[in-house]
Amino acid sequence: MTTSRRTEGSALARALSNPSSIALVGISDDPSKTAGRPLKFLRAAGFEGTLYPINPNRATVQGEKAYASLDALPEVPEHVFTLAPTNTVLDTARACARLGVKVLTVLASGFSESGEEGARREAELREIGRTTGLRVLGPSSLGVINPSARLVLTANAAFAEPDIPRGRVFVASHSGSMIGALVSRGKARGIGFAGLVSVGSESDLSIGEICSATLDDPAIEGYLLFLESLRHGSALRAFARDAARRGKPVIVYKLGRSASAAEMAATHTGALAGEDDVADAMFRDLGMARVGVLDSLLESFPLARRLPLDRTPSRPQRVGVVTTTGGGAAMAVDQLGIRDVIVEPASPQTLARLHAAGIAVSAGRVLDLTLAGTKYEVMKATLDIMIDAPEFDLVLAVVGSSARFQPQLAVRPIIDCQGSAKPVAAMLVPDAPQALAQLTQAGIPCFRSPEACADSIAAVFARRQPAVVPAPTGQPATPRHGSARALSESQAYGVLERLGVPHAPAVTMPLSGPAPALPFGFPVVAKVCSAQIPHKTEVGGVVLGIRSPAELDAALATLRANLAARAPSARCDDALVQPMRKGLAEVLIGYRDDPEAGPLVMLAAGGIWAEIARDRSIRLAPVSLDTAREMISEVKALQAVSGLRGKEKGDLDALARALAALSQLACRPELGIREAEVNPMMVMPEGEGVLAVDALVMAS
Amino acid sequence: MTTSRRTEGSALARALSNPSSIALVGISDDPSKTAGRPLKFLRAAGFEGTLYPINPNRATVQGEKAYASLDALPEVPEHVFTLAPTNTVLDTARACARLGVKVLTVLASGFSESGEEGARREAELREIGRTTGLRVLGPSSLGVINPSARLVLTANAAFAEPDIPRGRVFVASHSGSMIGALVSRGKARGIGFAGLVSVGSESDLSIGEICSATLDDPAIEGYLLFLESLRHGSALRAFARDAARRGKPVIVYKLGRSASAAEMAATHTGALAGEDDVADAMFRDLGMARVGVLDSLLESFPLARRLPLDRTPSRPQRVGVVTTTGGGAAMAVDQLGIRDVIVEPASPQTLARLHAAGIAVSAGRVLDLTLAGTKYEVMKATLDIMIDAPEFDLVLAVVGSSARFQPQLAVRPIIDCQGSAKPVAAMLVPDAPQALAQLTQAGIPCFRSPEACADSIAAVFARRQPAVVPAPTGQPATPRHGSARALSESQAYGVLERLGVPHAPAVTMPLSGPAPALPFGFPVVAKVCSAQIPHKTEVGGVVLGIRSPAELDAALATLRANLAARAPSARCDDALVQPMRKGLAEVLIGYRDDPEAGPLVMLAAGGIWAEIARDRSIRLAPVSLDTAREMISEVKALQAVSGLRGKEKGDLDALARALAALSQLACRPELGIREAEVNPMMVMPEGEGVLAVDALVMAS
Repeated sequence: MTTSRRTEGSALARALSNPSSIALVGISDDPSKTAGRPLKFLRAAGFEGTLYPINPNRATVQGEKAYASLDALPEVPEHVFTLAPTNTVLDTARACARLGVKVLTVLASGFSESGEEGARREAELREIGRTTGLRVLGPSSLGVINPSARLVLTANAAFAEPDIPRGRVFVASHSGSMIGALVSRGKARGIGFAGLVSVGSESDLSIGEICSATLDDPAIEGYLLFLESLRHGSALRAFARDAARRGKPVIVYKLGRSASAAEMAATHTGALAGEDDVADAMFRDLGMARVGVLDSLLESFPLARRLPLDRTPSRPQRVGVVTTTGGGAAMAVDQLGIRDVIVEPASPQTLARLHAAGIAVSAGRVLDLTLAGTKYEVMKATLDIMIDAPEFDLVLAVVGSSARFQPQLAVRPIIDCQGSAKPVAAMLVPDAPQALAQLTQAGIPCFRSPEACADSIAAVFARRQPAVVPAPTGQPATPRHGSARALSESQAYGVLERLGVPHAPAVTMPLSGPAPALPFGFPVVAKVCSAQIPHKTEVGGVVLGIRSPAELDAALATLRANLAARAPSARCDDALVQPMRKGLAEVLIGYRDDPEAGPLVMLAAGGIWAEIARDRSIRLAPVSLDTAREMISEVKALQAVSGLRGKEKGDLDALARALAALSQLACRPELGIREAEVNPMMVMPEGEGVLAVDALVMAS
Repeated sequence: MTTSRRTEGSALARALSNPSSIALVGISDDPSKTAGRPLKFLRAAGFEGTLYPINPNRATVQGEKAYASLDALPEVPEHVFTLAPTNTVLDTARACARLGVKVLTVLASGFSESGEEGARREAELREIGRTTGLRVLGPSSLGVINPSARLVLTANAAFAEPDIPRGRVFVASHSGSMIGALVSRGKARGIGFAGLVSVGSESDLSIGEICSATLDDPAIEGYLLFLESLRHGSALRAFARDAARRGKPVIVYKLGRSASAAEMAATHTGALAGEDDVADAMFRDLGMARVGVLDSLLESFPLARRLPLDRTPSRPQRVGVVTTTGGGAAMAVDQLGIRDVIVEPASPQTLARLHAAGIAVSAGRVLDLTLAGTKYEVMKATLDIMIDAPEFDLVLAVVGSSARFQPQLAVRPIIDCQGSAKPVAAMLVPDAPQALAQLTQAGIPCFRSPEACADSIAAVFARRQPAVVPAPTGQPATPRHGSARALSESQAYGVLERLGVPHAPAVTMPLSGPAPALPFGFPVVAKVCSAQIPHKTEVGGVVLGIRSPAELDAALATLRANLAARAPSARCDDALVQPMRKGLAEVLIGYRDDPEAGPLVMLAAGGIWAEIARDRSIRLAPVSLDTAREMISEVKALQAVSGLRGKEKGDLDALARALAALSQLACRPELGIREAEVNPMMVMPEGEGVLAVDALVMAS
């Protein structure tokens, strides 16, 4: 099956970006108009396949014979690009499907993004594809560019420029205008492309599927994704796993970082979906490098190609910095520090080797060659010694003014490290486009600003080798579609027990009372227990601090009265009673099978802190104990129970075990659980474990 | 006095960057050597003043007559640049002082940065200046550049390049190599300079004094500072105030942002000095725009020149965004959002005006002209309407591919907004250096990346008009030098009372006991009270939860025993007794006369949160009630008592009053207080005020 999918993938890739014949529907005679550009661009690029201009109103278009319709063509074109208005698109799609066209690219907008009628139109377009096998790129796609096939099948004005620089990365973008911007920015930096695609609104072909289809192409060594949102997550995840397996780096720039800032003030913290740290977790755990600086999207690939994906969080990666300019290096170190990247000073052994080689450097955060002078031999010898030094995972050379005038002094030795055992990267402090282009040509990661340099390094270091997801232990209880239903708290504890997540002792009893004898002492809490009442406090369904059997009976009466008044239609027969437990800290742990990011596990600070500061850590589920410990270290509030400043230590080991256990839901489809949230989870003193004292579980 | 200082300032500026005669001491015959460059550069630039090469070993240098010594010159040069080794510098300085040279620039390093001998050398250099009036630039200065005077008095290799672009900003940098990097980067962007100075280690002339001296120069309209640290803060502050008064913007890039990240894990939170948020507060409150992205240092000036300094925090400034590219604008909006800059949607009135003008835009966060098309008339009409719209303080146009090929479509209309009532800025999504240069030429703020765009806008918006510091109400009690001494807690309360900062009731009593009757009820706390024991808990000097007169007597005995055991040499006669008070929240408020940043006031979250998350707000003191309220809104922990989610509200008005009152120490030099810290300050429920329950005050 894998083989056939790959074959299909390759066929799709061919039809999409290397077709033998193309029809241009609605092509304009005026090459300066949007609808006229693709023919002009394809001819200018020297596209060697067959082109069929289609325009029912003209005998010729831009000097070429025009056909009246798809049906009038002498052959079935492999790829159709329609430039015609929205209201013609469905007819064109039907014709394509009927004729056996493989890919239809749709420029027009006016589909699901524009109200009900557009949504209907898009549904119909999707249905045509689903029932006939026609694949659709768009709507709102500006097209596809494949420099090696001389294919400039786009309406993007930016491609009027000849000489699209060729390179090893494939760009897939939600934004059509960005593919043009990236090409111009790449050109200015000596960075080329193996292909670019504007995916539009992904009604059918998604970024994930398109990129997967190109994975067999040996000319494509990496991917740059410009994402406006997370959608078609499942295809994107499958692509990321395959790309990681094949060692083809994926660099991602995704809009929406500021949403998380805005949401910091939001009231509901439990929700996992659509938030930027979810995307962060997904990208990182699937081995993708998410950059935050636009230049980094172009600059990160050579670095990602040289640095292997980190499997274990056992030891953070470290950068060694050498420089010919103290001020320039300090900028890079500062930016790396902001991003928590470790800049490692040279070890005494390394310093000794440098001194033995006659290189005048002093011990410090960076190796500053100012005194030694900017000379080829000095820089090269220093780089060689740094490449050998075990304390560095990456060597960064920050080069000053000489990079602009005399690249032979300090840039050339970096280029001569090409193919070294350890990657060497460069940041140039002056404006030095030629030196950057030379470095890029040599495959050396190089950066024009301290921000892009640090952002790229941090993003590439953060990547993790995607975990091998264990085979499910059973079949899904129900299909994943449809709405989820809440379990009662007592049923939820049953699920936690099966997973091995500890909870406070709990007994259920008839709400009608009187209460039976309890297996634990007072004080206790009594709660209504019903699958129909997921939010108990909202209906007055919780009574705290019950100190005696009599008070318990009274509490049951209170619960009955509150239910009658505030949730008269809810069915609720039972009460759940637990001993009052107070931990050193309260946290929230959650699991969710997110439609875009996939199964996720979250740990968050409890109580008001979760609302005030978004103090939480998210990973793709399942997680190992090591990863769970790492998550704990990322939640600031938990430092308060980590033994800091003589404060009492909480049982963080038990919390790690509970997190890892809850995350196993990702491997237990037979339980049919879509979402599970323990809030609060009490963190007891060291050795006393953790205890769920409330839980909400949603089943499919 | 002001006049004479300005005259002196101008004389200094002249000698520094527009001297009529220069001697180059130790100039090398080899123009490719560091010590040979200045003569070559000055000649290449066409410097018209007199140049005296001085080299005792040669009759000629680079083809010019060389003199044996300063004494051998036919006149006293106005400026001497010594390129000679460290060990000759003091002799040269003495000769300069004896002859009456105005400014000596020192290239050599090997002074205070390099051990004891260097420090002695620097002290001697400073002493020569102090006793003779010779002013020194450096050591470790790479020199001064003044394009309008054709003065390229530098050993920085970057200035081998001819044609230093002329412009309106003056660059002062701690890093000598950065002045070269900035010139090359400016050149690539069409940005020029009115002058540049490498200040080296500022043994005498500091950045503040140098920039102050140039403030009268009408050719200098703004300042770009590259700072490695805060030093000579007092001169820098004076310069910033003068620059703000004259409307000359100051843009600052300062290293050390990551230090604060590192310090987040530090244990002592009270310390104000040397931390990056102190620098942030100082720059902002003195009207300087602190940028965090290197490109912004070059790009912010035109924006800062157009936007007035904001005096009051009454209303945040807002950006209106118009674009020809949805994806590009989304990047800018995202980056602005990360930095908490408000992107304001167009009002219904503005939309109506746009529609009336026939411009097809839909309501949204930005005005997207994709449908309307990229045309001059559309963009110009939209900009004009936005400039008129009261909801925007700044209009940002994000331009797509057309900026590269067809600047007449969407860049030209921006240029034609030159001199508009409200500033219009541009961000170009493709690589479009020519359009950027045209915009720069027209004085339009323009940006090549979303990060620099947002960083610049955020930095410029954050600036505040420097507060007019009220005249002190008295004379300083003692000079500011020398070590500070702690007051006892009861003396500290006396200071708080004079300022109007409320504290919990407190009575002092002889530690020897027995305790007298108390004017307040139990439970109480008893503490040792002595100026010699600033840190009471460390000596067991606090007993909490005392519930009766008998327990109080026992507590006094405990305190005596602890003192005898743990601080036998400290003099302590008194105990201080207070009622136990618990607030809704605990905060720390502090005042400090910082040697670099000046008088500061701080509000921080109390307890363990201060240590875990650097949750604090800092301002230059004194602060108004409005500013104090703004500080409160910046401390996340205080959201917990702001009425959020039905939690009880704390008396934040009283806290604002207390902060403003404490900050008045900046205007009360007669009290002789250098530092005051209330920790904790209890925030009581609304209407019940705030109460200091411990305080540490340091007097000069």
